[in-house]
Amino acid sequence: MHAVLLQELKKHINLTAAEEELITASFRYKKVRKSQFLVQPPDIALYEHFVVSGCLMEYYLDDNGTQHTLIFAPEKWWTTDLHSFLKKEESRYYIEALEDTELLIITREALDNLLKEVPLLNNYFRILYQNAIMGLEERLLNVLSSKVEERYLRFLKKYPQLENRLPQYLIASYLGVTPEFFSRVKSRIHR
Amino acid sequence: MHAVLLQELKKHINLTAAEEELITASFRYKKVRKSQFLVQPPDIALYEHFVVSGCLMEYYLDDNGTQHTLIFAPEKWWTTDLHSFLKKEESRYYIEALEDTELLIITREALDNLLKEVPLLNNYFRILYQNAIMGLEERLLNVLSSKVEERYLRFLKKYPQLENRLPQYLIASYLGVTPEFFSRVKSRIHR
Repeated sequence: MHAVLLQELKKHINLTAAEEELITASFRYKKVRKSQFLVQPPDIALYEHFVVSGCLMEYYLDDNGTQHTLIFAPEKWWTTDLHSFLKKEESRYYIEALEDTELLIITREALDNLLKEVPLLNNYFRILYQNAIMGLEERLLNVLSSKVEERYLRFLKKYPQLENRLPQYLIASYLGVTPEFFSRVKSRIHR
Repeated sequence: MHAVLLQELKKHINLTAAEEELITASFRYKKVRKSQFLVQPPDIALYEHFVVSGCLMEYYLDDNGTQHTLIFAPEKWWTTDLHSFLKKEESRYYIEALEDTELLIITREALDNLLKEVPLLNNYFRILYQNAIMGLEERLLNVLSSKVEERYLRFLKKYPQLENRLPQYLIASYLGVTPEFFSRVKSRIHR
């Protein structure tokens, strides 16, 4: 189980056997069923989540109850409500399992400690967070840009593995349009 | 000039005299006037920018020519179009000086090199990027949430130094509302 995580880390940094053991000891295994919540406002997000198998989604519910999907997190993605996780304040984003999902989770304290013991992990997380920033900027462009086709093509590029695993209404929510409008856009593209 | 940067870095990490020299040698000084562009699509964002004095803003122009302000970057803030800077692809965000601004700038290559020479900087940038993620998530909430009052109060908390330095129409653009609507919201809050 931890092998998937170590393999992912070793794409970016070198680790000694002792460091691998420290990392393995710091992450706990968790299994959740489809539709189960990992983070539910106003609870504090206690863990950073690494997805081993399955898929999570992080979303915001606005005052009208409309769901705005921020990210999908399939295999080898990380996700948490970072603000809540770091500041120990109430979460504002939901994290829910879209499929039965296996996870490795780590608390804030264990992560702080691990970053001290294995300083190279700072390098890994710098790169991870860079990617998260680019993803969020992309997400903002999705919300602000008026071209739905473009948003959809970006979605396909970012999540090639997800198009056939997700219900269409969730992809529509991610793109910020109604399922009906999304269906029209798709048939326009495929023609 | 570089003292401001070193001081900022030393809030989070310890640096030797040799490391301080390396850092100083890697950043170049630049001065721009109000309204000058640092990044203008489709140019590639060649630098990461650290603001010594003055203020920058980063924004997106949608297809209708409406400006969506992503962040203001006053003293001691960093900003660039990260995707363009890292991937050397066309920028999509404008970065413009709101005031006469003094900057320290670094190229992608110099930054990569510096991260190798001064590994603790990974720690600094991990923290910086964490903050950027929280800021962007905040920004997304600003766009998605329907309560303008709340967005305005968040703006005041995030940028206490800026309220009287920025024209009102720019704050309205940051909040995603028209200047007229923003003015009504303000008078409602202050009553």
